Amino acid sequence: MTRVVELSGGVGGARLGRGLDSLDDVDLTVVVNVGDDLPIHGLYVSPDLDTMVYTLAGIEGPHGWGRADDTFIANTELARFGVDNRFQLGDLDLALKIYRSHGLAQGHTLTEVTDSVRAGFAIRSTVLPASDDPVRTMITTTDGSRLTFREYFVDRGHRDHVKKLDFEGDADANAAPGVIEAIDGADLLVIGPSNPPLSIWPILAIESIAQAVRRHPHVMAVSPLIGGRALKGPADVVMADLGLGSGSSAVVASYRGLIDTLVVDITDSDDARDIDGVNVVALETRIADRSNAATLARAILSL
Amino acid sequence: MTRVVELSGGVGGARLGRGLDSLDDVDLTVVVNVGDDLPIHGLYVSPDLDTMVYTLAGIEGPHGWGRADDTFIANTELARFGVDNRFQLGDLDLALKIYRSHGLAQGHTLTEVTDSVRAGFAIRSTVLPASDDPVRTMITTTDGSRLTFREYFVDRGHRDHVKKLDFEGDADANAAPGVIEAIDGADLLVIGPSNPPLSIWPILAIESIAQAVRRHPHVMAVSPLIGGRALKGPADVVMADLGLGSGSSAVVASYRGLIDTLVVDITDSDDARDIDGVNVVALETRIADRSNAATLARAILSL
Repeated sequence: MTRVVELSGGVGGARLGRGLDSLDDVDLTVVVNVGDDLPIHGLYVSPDLDTMVYTLAGIEGPHGWGRADDTFIANTELARFGVDNRFQLGDLDLALKIYRSHGLAQGHTLTEVTDSVRAGFAIRSTVLPASDDPVRTMITTTDGSRLTFREYFVDRGHRDHVKKLDFEGDADANAAPGVIEAIDGADLLVIGPSNPPLSIWPILAIESIAQAVRRHPHVMAVSPLIGGRALKGPADVVMADLGLGSGSSAVVASYRGLIDTLVVDITDSDDARDIDGVNVVALETRIADRSNAATLARAILSL
Repeated sequence: MTRVVELSGGVGGARLGRGLDSLDDVDLTVVVNVGDDLPIHGLYVSPDLDTMVYTLAGIEGPHGWGRADDTFIANTELARFGVDNRFQLGDLDLALKIYRSHGLAQGHTLTEVTDSVRAGFAIRSTVLPASDDPVRTMITTTDGSRLTFREYFVDRGHRDHVKKLDFEGDADANAAPGVIEAIDGADLLVIGPSNPPLSIWPILAIESIAQAVRRHPHVMAVSPLIGGRALKGPADVVMADLGLGSGSSAVVASYRGLIDTLVVDITDSDDARDIDGVNVVALETRIADRSNAATLARAILSL
């Protein structure tokens, strides 16, 4: 068994997670960003944890979030009461949100509730939130506004340029139980193809996790860029905004001092060389379906 | 305009409420039992308030509770996480529960949230909870157990015999804003055809409401019994258990010192006489549809 830990944000990281999860000789632990967690109608929504769980279970929605074949009966009805229901929660998806919110209110930790959810979907890999403590990604825009994830991403469609990120609560946040042990025991630590500043930095903002990553002998990242651009979301724009440059070198710069290998897409194979001491390797990273995911996972393991 | 206040429990009271609400010359305020309110999956469920709102809106479920044509997608899915989902919450119904729970968590009162819900369903009558404070009906059974409404009614199907009732929190509970003013200003105060001990006593357990009822010059009750038996639920059994006797005289005994008139069903017209100083009148009280409800409401007003 190869013990693999993946640090992951949402869709891209979850798809790689599914590929790794599908390999019989891999014992996978995913450590998932909780910086975007937010209350919706008083329910605890964890966009990246939910995308990960649904993707590992093979029931994710067509755009990578929410559930496949969901309905929006309750969500639509909320408008009757004047509620802003643009953050669409499907009826199947609501069951998870209700279950989690209730569990947390009863005093269970996010780690405990997440493991029950994992078991409910019969997922074999271990799914851990980065922290049971609140760590919230805050986006300061070039016009000086400091926005929550919801304001920046959902309400404003990530159209603002980013001046600075901070992760509220990071100084007081501990890694969730099992995270450090999993990283320390991993044969391979992979940072998934997620938005480096917005999805991975909030994990690394927890100092004990950053230290564990730094001391790991073999850390690989998978670039979220295809042909230098984010497949979806603002990864390329945010990295440029933050002065990290563009393309593969921006990803390397985002993970300075942390990784030894960067996997880029074959469309970026011109970058397959040493960049600032990081060995850049080109593979087919676009994950359109389950078979792609497994192929990429296998290729990564063989590096 | 005739100003009418109805004190009400669930299904029967709600149906009379619909009849009164349908009369153009009636200005109706319903004061609804909250003794059965309970948390389900961390959501605030108010069985009688919801039955009242849905019935006034004409969208109640076929058994008088929940919503017509609802689906149970989220409720069914909760079982995946090992959750006891026997208390069935439909998807449309969940929207109300989520909205209310969120509103209460944000610091709004039950009265405020209920009025927003009323407005959302374009109900013209005023809908008031008996109290914004917790008053919880507790059932002590003949075997000595002290059960919550959920345990007694939902989990155990009201099969226990009742030794004693108490209404936890009643001593500290205030009438909701508007309740006393509505009763004091009413031309007619009607106690709806609800379970007297289980649904109306928890309203009267709030001392300021009991006082307002006592000082009102014209208080009428509608018996929930048809041919001496409860149409549904355990009203007849509970009254007998509590030593109040049976039939119309049990209802009179339940409201001793509070009412001057009792409306009973025509199947109980043998009781249409003076019982302990209460004038008992027989009318068709079975409310099968909207037209029955309006007819009964009109007949009650003409007494």
